[in-house]
Amino acid sequence: MINVLFSAGDERWPAYAEALPAAFAAKGLKVNLHRDQSNPAAVDYLVHAPNGTVSDFAPFVNAKAVLNLWAGVEKIVGNPTLTQPLTRMVDAGLQEGMVEWVTGHVLRYHLGMDRQIIDQRPVWEPVVPPLARNRRVVLLGLGELGTACAQALAALNFQVIGWSRRAKDVPGVTCLSGTEGLKAALTQAEICVLLLPQTPATENLLNAETLALMPRGAFLLNPGRGPLIEDAALLAALDSGQIAHATLDVFRVEPLPADDPYWAHPKVTVTPHIASETRAETASEVIAENIRRGEAGEPFLYVVDRSAGY
Amino acid sequence: MINVLFSAGDERWPAYAEALPAAFAAKGLKVNLHRDQSNPAAVDYLVHAPNGTVSDFAPFVNAKAVLNLWAGVEKIVGNPTLTQPLTRMVDAGLQEGMVEWVTGHVLRYHLGMDRQIIDQRPVWEPVVPPLARNRRVVLLGLGELGTACAQALAALNFQVIGWSRRAKDVPGVTCLSGTEGLKAALTQAEICVLLLPQTPATENLLNAETLALMPRGAFLLNPGRGPLIEDAALLAALDSGQIAHATLDVFRVEPLPADDPYWAHPKVTVTPHIASETRAETASEVIAENIRRGEAGEPFLYVVDRSAGY
Repeated sequence: MINVLFSAGDERWPAYAEALPAAFAAKGLKVNLHRDQSNPAAVDYLVHAPNGTVSDFAPFVNAKAVLNLWAGVEKIVGNPTLTQPLTRMVDAGLQEGMVEWVTGHVLRYHLGMDRQIIDQRPVWEPVVPPLARNRRVVLLGLGELGTACAQALAALNFQVIGWSRRAKDVPGVTCLSGTEGLKAALTQAEICVLLLPQTPATENLLNAETLALMPRGAFLLNPGRGPLIEDAALLAALDSGQIAHATLDVFRVEPLPADDPYWAHPKVTVTPHIASETRAETASEVIAENIRRGEAGEPFLYVVDRSAGY
Repeated sequence: MINVLFSAGDERWPAYAEALPAAFAAKGLKVNLHRDQSNPAAVDYLVHAPNGTVSDFAPFVNAKAVLNLWAGVEKIVGNPTLTQPLTRMVDAGLQEGMVEWVTGHVLRYHLGMDRQIIDQRPVWEPVVPPLARNRRVVLLGLGELGTACAQALAALNFQVIGWSRRAKDVPGVTCLSGTEGLKAALTQAEICVLLLPQTPATENLLNAETLALMPRGAFLLNPGRGPLIEDAALLAALDSGQIAHATLDVFRVEPLPADDPYWAHPKVTVTPHIASETRAETASEVIAENIRRGEAGEPFLYVVDRSAGY
């Protein structure tokens, strides 16, 4: 019998109490799934999420892995008590949701939809948008999510430029890397999408200097992590017209406080961290597969590289 | 020397006076392109558009074809003086623009974007949309444009159901046809897109009876032709909540008059016939190819079936 502690928050338990046992059964795993932390030495695996019930991993001396329910691990990767292997979530549902949010909002900016949606005046002014084949979209970040978004946008004929710290190769996408590559990407970013992990190197990557590299009137989408943007610099760039409009799904503080200037800014759309959400059904399949691998002595999927931070 | 009369409206002449000669040259065609109607018997081909300069085709006794610049031919197909072969425009740029408009507005409804775009209140209410794989989108019309849109939506994981008068087969799309097929399609249409040609059989296809078949709270997109919808029935369905929202790009009268109820309706977005627009550069390539075929005695591309009306 495999002993699995569910140490994510209470609000997630009902969905996973149903989805995890089904996923375990589908793989033929005999699992005791519980929330009882009284005997940490007996725990084989932790199913974890930030703001969950465990912050000290030291007592889990026999745990073979900590399986994170979220794609982002910045809240746990620096925890000094965490010595067990840590895996990220790569959830098909999360990825599909992200592709849909990014594709939808890129098309919204590309087509100039807001002009028709907001306060429509009864004036017939046909302004035909350019074709996607003549529109440059830049994705900063080419991990699983960034790559999936880049490919969906390329399939819609957008000129897609992707940037990542380490050089990558994505078919149909112009891939850039390194510091010079970042500059080259930003200078072409008519629409820019942030899908980088949050690390010390990416914090405030979008600041006064880098925002100034973008074409005047560029559009910005942030479904990645709030701290990628230096907020005061973005607000100044919006006010000056350097950035025409931004749609932000993630913030340094969530829920975004009611008095935050982003809410009322006429050039900002706030979406409440809905760009992607781990779905219990698909995520449980990944958790079950990693436990099967752990029991079979096979390497885990999506192990976090602690030195890189993701 | 091939004699080509440009009989579309003045407003189109500047773009085509540049793009057509380039396309003819690329195919090695020696063409005298002009706007002079004084010697109709000398004209080999007419490049035509509705509201153009020719309405009586009888004097063009030697014309080998009338090459329409638009995809829709309802304003010319019933002209009794037209005895020459008539071709429709199937323009790559027009098709790409249509795919982008349809995909963008389907994603807008799917994601519930308007909630965030219009009058945003500073309240953090995460409502995660369903995944596209659980959303049914119905396309009425599976011609070139409808098929291209269906495939783009299927590639984004939507459950796509297509309906056409005659049975079709589109990979990844559930294809229905006939009267019973139309009912089956409408009852599943969470989001419904109209891309049918305008014919006596399709006029007022969306009426009180057919709108009532759709799931309550459905979304409607009309980038096809205005008369496909019985306007009073749609307004009533919007007011009752049967249809949650409609985005309309085409109308019985264009430009849409300033006092038309669609403009001010809170559940209607008007876009000013921008869903697709023939692009001179790509359309000229199609015109040139058809003239090359005519001169070589090969069959024309996209010949209109007069009995079907499209």
